[in-house]
Amino acid sequence: MLVFSTAGESHGRGVFSFLDGLPAGLRVDRGVIDADLARRQRGHGRGSRMSIEKDRVDVLSGIRGGITLGSPVLLAVWNNDFENWKQYLDPWEIVEGRELHTPRPGHADLGGAARFRHTDLRNVLERASARETAGRVAAGGLLRSFLGSLRIHVHSWVTRIGPIAYDGTFAMQARDASSVFCPDDVSTREMERSIDRAAHEGDSLGGGFAVVLHGLPAGIGSYTQWDQRLDGLLSMHLMSIPAVKSVQIGAGIACAELPGSRVHDPILPSRPRSRPSNNAGGLEGGMTNGEPVLLRCTMKPIPTLTRGLPTIDMRDGSAVQATYERSDVCAVPAASVVGEAMAIIAVSSAILAGFAQPSMEALTAAFEGHRRYWEGL
Amino acid sequence: MLVFSTAGESHGRGVFSFLDGLPAGLRVDRGVIDADLARRQRGHGRGSRMSIEKDRVDVLSGIRGGITLGSPVLLAVWNNDFENWKQYLDPWEIVEGRELHTPRPGHADLGGAARFRHTDLRNVLERASARETAGRVAAGGLLRSFLGSLRIHVHSWVTRIGPIAYDGTFAMQARDASSVFCPDDVSTREMERSIDRAAHEGDSLGGGFAVVLHGLPAGIGSYTQWDQRLDGLLSMHLMSIPAVKSVQIGAGIACAELPGSRVHDPILPSRPRSRPSNNAGGLEGGMTNGEPVLLRCTMKPIPTLTRGLPTIDMRDGSAVQATYERSDVCAVPAASVVGEAMAIIAVSSAILAGFAQPSMEALTAAFEGHRRYWEGL
Amino acid sequence: MLVFSTAGESHGRGVFSFLDGLPAGLRVDRGVIDADLARRQRGHGRGSRMSIEKDRVDVLSGIRGGITLGSPVLLAVWNNDFENWKQYLDPWEIVEGRELHTPRPGHADLGGAARFRHTDLRNVLERASARETAGRVAAGGLLRSFLGSLRIHVHSWVTRIGPIAYDGTFAMQARDASSVFCPDDVSTREMERSIDRAAHEGDSLGGGFAVVLHGLPAGIGSYTQWDQRLDGLLSMHLMSIPAVKSVQIGAGIACAELPGSRVHDPILPSRPRSRPSNNAGGLEGGMTNGEPVLLRCTMKPIPTLTRGLPTIDMRDGSAVQATYERSDVCAVPAASVVGEAMAIIAVSSAILAGFAQPSMEALTAAFEGHRRYWEGL
Amino acid sequence: MLVFSTAGESHGRGVFSFLDGLPAGLRVDRGVIDADLARRQRGHGRGSRMSIEKDRVDVLSGIRGGITLGSPVLLAVWNNDFENWKQYLDPWEIVEGRELHTPRPGHADLGGAARFRHTDLRNVLERASARETAGRVAAGGLLRSFLGSLRIHVHSWVTRIGPIAYDGTFAMQARDASSVFCPDDVSTREMERSIDRAAHEGDSLGGGFAVVLHGLPAGIGSYTQWDQRLDGLLSMHLMSIPAVKSVQIGAGIACAELPGSRVHDPILPSRPRSRPSNNAGGLEGGMTNGEPVLLRCTMKPIPTLTRGLPTIDMRDGSAVQATYERSDVCAVPAASVVGEAMAIIAVSSAILAGFAQPSMEALTAAFEGHRRYWEGL
Repeated sequence: MLVFSTAGESHGRGVFSFLDGLPAGLRVDRGVIDADLARRQRGHGRGSRMSIEKDRVDVLSGIRGGITLGSPVLLAVWNNDFENWKQYLDPWEIVEGRELHTPRPGHADLGGAARFRHTDLRNVLERASARETAGRVAAGGLLRSFLGSLRIHVHSWVTRIGPIAYDGTFAMQARDASSVFCPDDVSTREMERSIDRAAHEGDSLGGGFAVVLHGLPAGIGSYTQWDQRLDGLLSMHLMSIPAVKSVQIGAGIACAELPGSRVHDPILPSRPRSRPSNNAGGLEGGMTNGEPVLLRCTMKPIPTLTRGLPTIDMRDGSAVQATYERSDVCAVPAASVVGEAMAIIAVSSAILAGFAQPSMEALTAAFEGHRRYWEGL
Repeated sequence: MLVFSTAGESHGRGVFSFLDGLPAGLRVDRGVIDADLARRQRGHGRGSRMSIEKDRVDVLSGIRGGITLGSPVLLAVWNNDFENWKQYLDPWEIVEGRELHTPRPGHADLGGAARFRHTDLRNVLERASARETAGRVAAGGLLRSFLGSLRIHVHSWVTRIGPIAYDGTFAMQARDASSVFCPDDVSTREMERSIDRAAHEGDSLGGGFAVVLHGLPAGIGSYTQWDQRLDGLLSMHLMSIPAVKSVQIGAGIACAELPGSRVHDPILPSRPRSRPSNNAGGLEGGMTNGEPVLLRCTMKPIPTLTRGLPTIDMRDGSAVQATYERSDVCAVPAASVVGEAMAIIAVSSAILAGFAQPSMEALTAAFEGHRRYWEGL
Repeated sequence: MLVFSTAGESHGRGVFSFLDGLPAGLRVDRGVIDADLARRQRGHGRGSRMSIEKDRVDVLSGIRGGITLGSPVLLAVWNNDFENWKQYLDPWEIVEGRELHTPRPGHADLGGAARFRHTDLRNVLERASARETAGRVAAGGLLRSFLGSLRIHVHSWVTRIGPIAYDGTFAMQARDASSVFCPDDVSTREMERSIDRAAHEGDSLGGGFAVVLHGLPAGIGSYTQWDQRLDGLLSMHLMSIPAVKSVQIGAGIACAELPGSRVHDPILPSRPRSRPSNNAGGLEGGMTNGEPVLLRCTMKPIPTLTRGLPTIDMRDGSAVQATYERSDVCAVPAASVVGEAMAIIAVSSAILAGFAQPSMEALTAAFEGHRRYWEGL
Repeated sequence: MLVFSTAGESHGRGVFSFLDGLPAGLRVDRGVIDADLARRQRGHGRGSRMSIEKDRVDVLSGIRGGITLGSPVLLAVWNNDFENWKQYLDPWEIVEGRELHTPRPGHADLGGAARFRHTDLRNVLERASARETAGRVAAGGLLRSFLGSLRIHVHSWVTRIGPIAYDGTFAMQARDASSVFCPDDVSTREMERSIDRAAHEGDSLGGGFAVVLHGLPAGIGSYTQWDQRLDGLLSMHLMSIPAVKSVQIGAGIACAELPGSRVHDPILPSRPRSRPSNNAGGLEGGMTNGEPVLLRCTMKPIPTLTRGLPTIDMRDGSAVQATYERSDVCAVPAASVVGEAMAIIAVSSAILAGFAQPSMEALTAAFEGHRRYWEGL
């Protein structure tokens, strides 16, 4: 069983990822993790924080000479900005609170104040920050090596920013060349313009992204218990990304309008069994069916607007405008990288739940045995 | 912490729900559970199995004189049909296998065979059956009493069947009067006609449903860890319903197209703090924000078509047509009831994770204390 | 991962075991389960309840034709006595409470009343009853087939009843011939006499039992996280048996008095690596080391004495004597069977955590691969 | 629910404790944590490593200005020794392996090699090291503030070192004055002499320690499910301490020899209900009963002997002597501090499972409400 948790505050010491349950003997590539971290920081529409932080993974435990030990792995992404915030966030003594009292619509501020009885909203927003997703991406980058060893590959791309949609297919090179991670040059330029316009108006934009997983044999996840279904697990992992408001699998919402005869993917007499269509998005009965797993998410616009939103001051209940200088205008490209990471984590969990072995050698043998069984079915 | 699991095969002894972690002293209403079970069996477009089973809850443990003991609760919904299936499904001796070898597209059959190495697909489909959702509805019916005690109420309605959409609001009486659980008379008749047409063509239909939860104070769920976020938990619970292919929260997909200034819900200086809009669907930062929680799901069409779908025979790999006599044509109304149950279970879990007390007396006091704190914030 | 829970009240419908996470394709022997259940009911010193109940396992889900389906398994041991108790314990309507208000020293009564705010102690003692262990033994009996398939075998015997200790070794035939499950004829007769004497005096007796597991390769359990250590897991499983007050591994308490040079078991250059002594009880670093795993437990005397114990009446606080007609005098033999079951469950959990595969075929292959690696180390 | 895990290798970057589920608003005392860490490093019989490390807690997340945020807490105890080991343990590039191939009897070496297929035993022993317990003590030190806020206090003392036993009671000042944490001057000197003698002979010594918890109201832990019983949880936490081989609750093993009438603790008509004896060790039915919780553990001798133990060289299977220069002779005093920490963690878990609230304010109110109910019962 894979255990995955993060820790860390936005302007605190750093963001941390704790991973337990990885087999020993997995060869990990630092460059892959750092590349994912760098990708999360890029994207047209990011604010100034990204120029302060140059995220790199630091391994605190569990890896030696590039190989997992079987011990728990602890990763750190240190916050350079902590130096500037020490006096407000020191664990033991804070000089001055830099307190906040106006909850921002669209953020955790108000609910967090209610839940934990925090009067200083900084105590909420330091944790309920998109910076936490650096920890998810670091973990996803590490597990990318795990899935890669099992010949499973994961990609993502941006499918919409505000009014501009891209419905085409994925192409790695084109996506990497795009400032918004959209594998199409024309769409990219339109998306950039939309972002610039929103920035000019003090507004923000959301959008959509897709994640695809290739190379999964059938039978990952399980129909036998509701909470072991891979569709549910993937949903939870993706919907837990800050600002994600919808998750679709395969044809998703479009399934509702079509008759069954046009939705279900026939099974062909090939080996391994394959399908002429993939409306199921590679998931039937809560399990993989051998086709690529296809996921799509919607991200709402960034809730911190420079033009402000109506709110209250919690000290006296008066109506005020929530305004902040520094902010991203659009974080959909970054979110697509986080989506990739969360999909990687979900699928790694499902594999380690069903096909656990203490060493990578034994795990690979067992998993490839499963793959052969599937391919010969 | 709430533990919820189901057990049971479609034509076996029955369907069972195991619930652990409920406080003692909760008054439970048998009529409410049975009404939910009956509602799950209704809906225009259901097949003949529903006339065999008249589901009623039977309590095997944990409740005495209508009050929970604090002990684990085990609920049974017995299968009347087991009498006819005993010889094929007996736990110890089976006279004849009634084996199946043609995996149905859209079902768990193929993936399940790969995962568990079952050569008889009956071993998959007996568990990967919509009948399992009777156990979810029984549990949801019981927990409806729990949420009711905390003044939280949950409803669902059908928003689409095939080509016919209903975008209006919820009304209990109208929904209960509808053969498809859609709170609109005109839409109901059009939906019925769509279903009849699909039945006539040997086809099936999917659709959509909405679930709304009223009465939740802010601060249920938590932003502090990705897997404690209520948006993620609700997604997992809903996406795990067989045939659900998308989950949206609040404005969902529509958030992607609009600028932040039109998506985020301003905070008003009322007590408790409220919003003039609810695009967030009552969830911000993975927590409730005091507004109604609004969820929408897509269900794909029933994958068992009387006109059949191309597949293979697993014994020799030959191409065949998967056909079955008995089947539902549309199960969206039933799915809406299951959706209600899963939302109830998810929210009950989040409450019991954050506000646990061994007795209902102490739990209610603590929860109402939280509500007062929120209302006075 | 193995999930194991029980449900059920002492005089309710029955006792139930829920098991999730078992591989498909495991051949289960009903006779083995029933034999364990029968053995739990035997033993010199049992009271009259045992003559009412003749426990037999009834499978409610997850097994078909004697083979696991991979689906959750639900086992029932029905209570014959429920017929006599229906009116006091019906889930919905109770005619009369048969209430209890004098908490018995040594029982859960007082703590349970405090925890759950029960005013009728029957609501506590119906669940906090040794009858619940029938569910543990049923689960253990099923998992005995699982371990047996992996060539792991588990036995127990009684090592002490009150003043009479037995320090010798285990012998199956002698144990089975003993009325107190002690593999020695002379000790058995002395133990019987001690029990008869205690019965005559209205008193009760405790004692001790040992459990041994043969056939485990090294490397089961893990040192990498405190809660994955097999020594801790076994302790938890055994100490959770009602009335158990100590758990020792290997030489246990005796380790404290001897120097390291006489405690640690040298490693011999045999294949597989073996030891001339087994003071570690087969567990080093929280893992098996290839030697038999040896566990010893102490059970306190039955707390229900016919001669009574001083307590209070909770209604008015007055001092009274807690007396009960019907009771066992000594339940150590039964506890030894429960101990076996809990050790089986703990080790099965550790194996399924480290070496999970969805099918028994794949699991056996992977586990035997591990065993070969160990034997060739 | 409290989540507690550690990470870190013995000569790696440090030892880390991850704690999730703590309420917000808990005031934490750094001095208390550091005092516990210092105490773990003391004790007559420790080796030279203790002079290299001066353990102090460093908070990486979750605490601000001495108060918990409700976010996950990550604690670090950095290894000074890492500077000397960097080249052998760097996460990415290791200059030289400093490999080990002779498994030490009594250690995790052999089982760990079998489990994870490590050929270099350093990959096992770096994690399977007593240094990991610094992380447990740091967590325990933090949670001591949590229990203290609820008026629960935890102490430990050494009850035996090798041949020298101390059966007397606890006295804080005397224990703190003792070089072996035994609250008796005469015993302390005899224990010191035993340790010196063992050191002289190249041997090592084990012993025993006791942990007592004061101030727990009745009803913590639960009889309703085997894995919620506090006796089982405490056992698991204590038996998971490296080298612990037995756990006793209350009278423990002595219960086996006495009749029930002399073991069970009568309930007195006082308020709160109390007992004239405490053979149950404060635990009945898996719950606290209002009396002090009393636990006793046995620790085996340190397995690293300067005079060596017979073992093999894994490269060629030849018989060799496992010898090491640097080692402790006796670590029972240190283990008693770890035992305290693990008991604190177990009880904190049980409280947070049964009486969770997101803020310390709400949690304290609910817990004190429970205490009042118990005291008025």
